[in-house]
Amino acid sequence: MTLQKTDLSRLRRRNPRGRYDEETIYGLLDAGLLAHVGYVDDGNPIVTPTAYWREGESLYWHGAKEGRFINAVTHGPVCVTVTHFDGLVFARSGFHHSALHRTVMAFGTCSLVEEDSAKVQALDTFLNRLLPERASVVRPITPQELNATAVVRFHIEEASAKIREGGVQDAERDYGFPVWAGVMKTSFTIQEVTDDDRLVKGVARPTDLTGISNGTILENYLTRRQINV
Amino acid sequence: MTLQKTDLSRLRRRNPRGRYDEETIYGLLDAGLLAHVGYVDDGNPIVTPTAYWREGESLYWHGAKEGRFINAVTHGPVCVTVTHFDGLVFARSGFHHSALHRTVMAFGTCSLVEEDSAKVQALDTFLNRLLPERASVVRPITPQELNATAVVRFHIEEASAKIREGGVQDAERDYGFPVWAGVMKTSFTIQEVTDDDRLVKGVARPTDLTGISNGTILENYLTRRQINV
Repeated sequence: MTLQKTDLSRLRRRNPRGRYDEETIYGLLDAGLLAHVGYVDDGNPIVTPTAYWREGESLYWHGAKEGRFINAVTHGPVCVTVTHFDGLVFARSGFHHSALHRTVMAFGTCSLVEEDSAKVQALDTFLNRLLPERASVVRPITPQELNATAVVRFHIEEASAKIREGGVQDAERDYGFPVWAGVMKTSFTIQEVTDDDRLVKGVARPTDLTGISNGTILENYLTRRQINV
Repeated sequence: MTLQKTDLSRLRRRNPRGRYDEETIYGLLDAGLLAHVGYVDDGNPIVTPTAYWREGESLYWHGAKEGRFINAVTHGPVCVTVTHFDGLVFARSGFHHSALHRTVMAFGTCSLVEEDSAKVQALDTFLNRLLPERASVVRPITPQELNATAVVRFHIEEASAKIREGGVQDAERDYGFPVWAGVMKTSFTIQEVTDDDRLVKGVARPTDLTGISNGTILENYLTRRQINV
């Protein structure tokens, strides 16, 4: 199935880098944690970063029920952009310098998850995405906490991905120019896991976190791929 | 000087985490490379990721002159958000789980840098931010390339920063709950620098790139801090 329906999501430039298939788009969304959510509030565009997760054709996030963010996204069109920044390309000309990236831009509308049991289930899914089985071991949510928390479902109406990968792409006539060219690859990595210093005696770090080391790529942790490779 | 002027940039929640001073805001902007730019196109919010740089009270980025992005940002209000995602906080309750982050949200308007010499100077500044002295060694820009490139100046009219740092902040009554709690710190890191395989013989990698190693934190590279510490 394709997620590209109107001009809103059609890449007008660099079409060879555009992708509209669900596998690509959902794969990039599932490998991310941070989205930048764009909405319009009183005529002004606002971009709010938020942690998100995906289920089917929807993205979810949560927030304070009385906040501007939650109120605004549920009252107008929304754009959600997830960017994996993968590095810098140093070409022989300034013009062909480039950034390696994998970006998804999704358009749709938001609704609140209203029913308490559905909210709890959604929040549990999020916790378990951050750390497997986390939801079943934490102190259960209270009615007051649940009431103060809004869970937003963003239905993806259309979406596109743009991917710039590979290496230097200079103009053919520039390859003889005597300047260094190359690629700096970058990744989002886990630096360190530390225990809170007030842990109850005998409580151990979860094995899913003991298996990671400094430098583990966050994307691999989130997708449960290649940990400890 | 404060950059907070109206309700647009006032954090309505978690005020203790809000910052409005130039030193904080400019510092966070200078430590970033990727911005998420929000604008309104035909009533729809759109969020486009772009590499940026700062000079004084302005942010700059560039793009294809005929693109939707450049056209739209120069015809309406713009929000630029830069997010440093620093990690995850695992609390004893799901409710107190949190993300470490340093975020700047800036509001303003864009104009095009029109004069050729000013455009070249701006693009050179950007190249030199990516790699010191890069602009003076690459193949010079051609009139055709310059003409195809738009340079956008975003004037910061107001801005706010929000910072969540530190560790677990559980409700006091929860500290006795026997579940692991702690922090996973994350950073954007340089993984690898590789030479293009068609380098002219004898061309060496710039010393600024030989000084970095796998795992160098990108923010430190950009601010020329703590490389090789």
